[in-house]
Amino acid sequence: MSKALAGVRVIDLTHAYNGPFCTMQLADHGAEVIKVEKPGSGDQTRGWAPFKAGCDDSCYYAFLNRNKKGITLDITKPEGKEIFKQLVTTADVVVENFRYGTMEKLGLGYEELKTINPRIIFASSSGFGQYGPLKERPAYDVIAQAMGGIMSVTGERGGPPVKVGPGLGDNFTGTYLASGIAMALYHREKTGVGNRIDVSMQDVIFSALETTLPFYDTNGVILGREGNVDPATSPYDMYTCKDGYVVCGAASDKLWSLFCKAIGNQGLETDERFTTNELRVINRDQLTDEIHKWSKGITVAEAEAALMGHGVPCGPIYNVEEIVNHPHTKAREMVVEVNHPTIGKMRIQGVTVKLYESPGSVDAPAPLLGQHTEEVLKAEIGLSDEEIRKYKEMNII
Amino acid sequence: MSKALAGVRVIDLTHAYNGPFCTMQLADHGAEVIKVEKPGSGDQTRGWAPFKAGCDDSCYYAFLNRNKKGITLDITKPEGKEIFKQLVTTADVVVENFRYGTMEKLGLGYEELKTINPRIIFASSSGFGQYGPLKERPAYDVIAQAMGGIMSVTGERGGPPVKVGPGLGDNFTGTYLASGIAMALYHREKTGVGNRIDVSMQDVIFSALETTLPFYDTNGVILGREGNVDPATSPYDMYTCKDGYVVCGAASDKLWSLFCKAIGNQGLETDERFTTNELRVINRDQLTDEIHKWSKGITVAEAEAALMGHGVPCGPIYNVEEIVNHPHTKAREMVVEVNHPTIGKMRIQGVTVKLYESPGSVDAPAPLLGQHTEEVLKAEIGLSDEEIRKYKEMNII
Repeated sequence: MSKALAGVRVIDLTHAYNGPFCTMQLADHGAEVIKVEKPGSGDQTRGWAPFKAGCDDSCYYAFLNRNKKGITLDITKPEGKEIFKQLVTTADVVVENFRYGTMEKLGLGYEELKTINPRIIFASSSGFGQYGPLKERPAYDVIAQAMGGIMSVTGERGGPPVKVGPGLGDNFTGTYLASGIAMALYHREKTGVGNRIDVSMQDVIFSALETTLPFYDTNGVILGREGNVDPATSPYDMYTCKDGYVVCGAASDKLWSLFCKAIGNQGLETDERFTTNELRVINRDQLTDEIHKWSKGITVAEAEAALMGHGVPCGPIYNVEEIVNHPHTKAREMVVEVNHPTIGKMRIQGVTVKLYESPGSVDAPAPLLGQHTEEVLKAEIGLSDEEIRKYKEMNII
Repeated sequence: MSKALAGVRVIDLTHAYNGPFCTMQLADHGAEVIKVEKPGSGDQTRGWAPFKAGCDDSCYYAFLNRNKKGITLDITKPEGKEIFKQLVTTADVVVENFRYGTMEKLGLGYEELKTINPRIIFASSSGFGQYGPLKERPAYDVIAQAMGGIMSVTGERGGPPVKVGPGLGDNFTGTYLASGIAMALYHREKTGVGNRIDVSMQDVIFSALETTLPFYDTNGVILGREGNVDPATSPYDMYTCKDGYVVCGAASDKLWSLFCKAIGNQGLETDERFTTNELRVINRDQLTDEIHKWSKGITVAEAEAALMGHGVPCGPIYNVEEIVNHPHTKAREMVVEVNHPTIGKMRIQGVTVKLYESPGSVDAPAPLLGQHTEEVLKAEIGLSDEEIRKYKEMNII
């Protein structure tokens, strides 16, 4: 069984988080990803925490770059550009997430690369995209989250804006970019035409705002922060237990009835404040007080058991330890082990998209800096031992 | 110029948010998406707010289902199943997000559909996936966010877990699913083999946790909630101004120096508490106090101008109104107008992934319930007027 992207060659100029998260997905699904790093230093994430005691190789870099080959190449020098262009002639896809304009300044923009490989798919991610008045503006994840709108609708009611903890502006962008590359590959099979792909972190965050745009456009309502409730249904929230929290949703009348049974308070069902979803939304705070009379006296496990026993959708707030060790996570191979040459055995996330007829997998740890330079440049560009030696001396590779 | 997925036919059984968000992306990029809804009621989101005054058609449904054709078909009845199977013989992709096991119970699972169309790509999204001990567990977005781990790392330091405001468990899942479908289409072009795709909301959320797994695996550290800071760099946070907040990141020594100039306090740069990033992380609270002496006396616009004037990455917290009306959003066509037959002119999100050689676009409003039933069933299945009439009477279509 071949993987979905078997035979696809990707030249990967990405660094930090969003670009590498994209090329990780491509590599997991069988693309040959050749990651190009700066000689000497490499991707900046090689310096990012966490590190294992006594080991200089970053676990951050390692979790994000599994399944990729790594070469060093200085594409700012003429000889490096030349080698890069030769690699591009062998490739299907180039991915980069430099600041806007960097590739063009190097003479390695889409228009240039298209002349040497007309079928190339050239994919870029950046804070604000490749056109528009903000295109040159620098971004970090938190800036994309702020200017893309998600912070305005995340946080406690009445509280300050809160960013999504992990770098959503990065990992969501990487996923859209991988999707765009797969679409462009399909399109190229059908038409023979290459592509230029442009994904902006701000656009990505904005695309995820769900109801905020229709509420604004329809009635001029600017939605704000609502904690963990669903503005349109109740009960649907996070509730406090003796030892933590449980989330729960009972968004239909049928579930509401089961909910009342589950919490052992069937009187609530006929309580005139709560007879319809509309009333339960209006009287949400009073309903929450009633629910807390139940939940605050019991453990999360007890609350979960009671709700699940009546078929009411609910769940605990898992931290990473609880997820990693959960039988379901294991059954779905969402945590896999790789053996890194210096870090040793590491558990990292598995493959999210399950393709049963062409399953992706994690087969190799992240490369050491320049680990595959000789192998790739000899096999693909035909460099000799002598040339390899020379370019190493010149700090080109 | 053809769109990337031109010629791809998708039979879309999805409802609510995650599945329709997937098929929206396919439709935006040129796939013919035939959305199948239950006669009489249709997708549950047809009842979801917001509504325009005097109009019964949901703006929620309308923003999510643009570019799709809509037919009614009761796939629980024998005649409906038969028509569905005939549609499947004409299709490339079937997408569904019913509860686990529903399609199999209807006799319409992957194994059955493969016998009538061996090249079919059958894509499913669900709360916990198609296998694993939790596969039958019901989920809402908040439950995927809770059990996928993102709530454990989102929120104020010392505060309770907070969900991402919009339905991230849904829209991120829909995006992964669209990516998986595009990969499977490419793979089928190369090999002739169809596919079965399984994406779980919990897996998706777990995939987005960034550093939490490596920190836990490496050193047993369970990361918690950190508000808007980056645990590894400083200054990188949201700061309070007279009239709101500004986010800002100065993650390198060079940016730190520029930051001190921007806030007019170059003394900070040589302050022994803040001379290295490591010290700035250790003394973050003291540094925040110093920054607030500056930011709290000025407006967000003034803070942004000062920081941008020195090249320090920063930004305001935009709400939906500010994004929708921003020249950059307009330049990137991230808000587009469609003319809905009953709602009228609506502004909705544009196409996130920009494919320059095969651009996606928003060409048609969401379908009214059953709008394309006759057209599709006559053209694709060859139903006669008489059969259409009969099936309508029988409430099959």
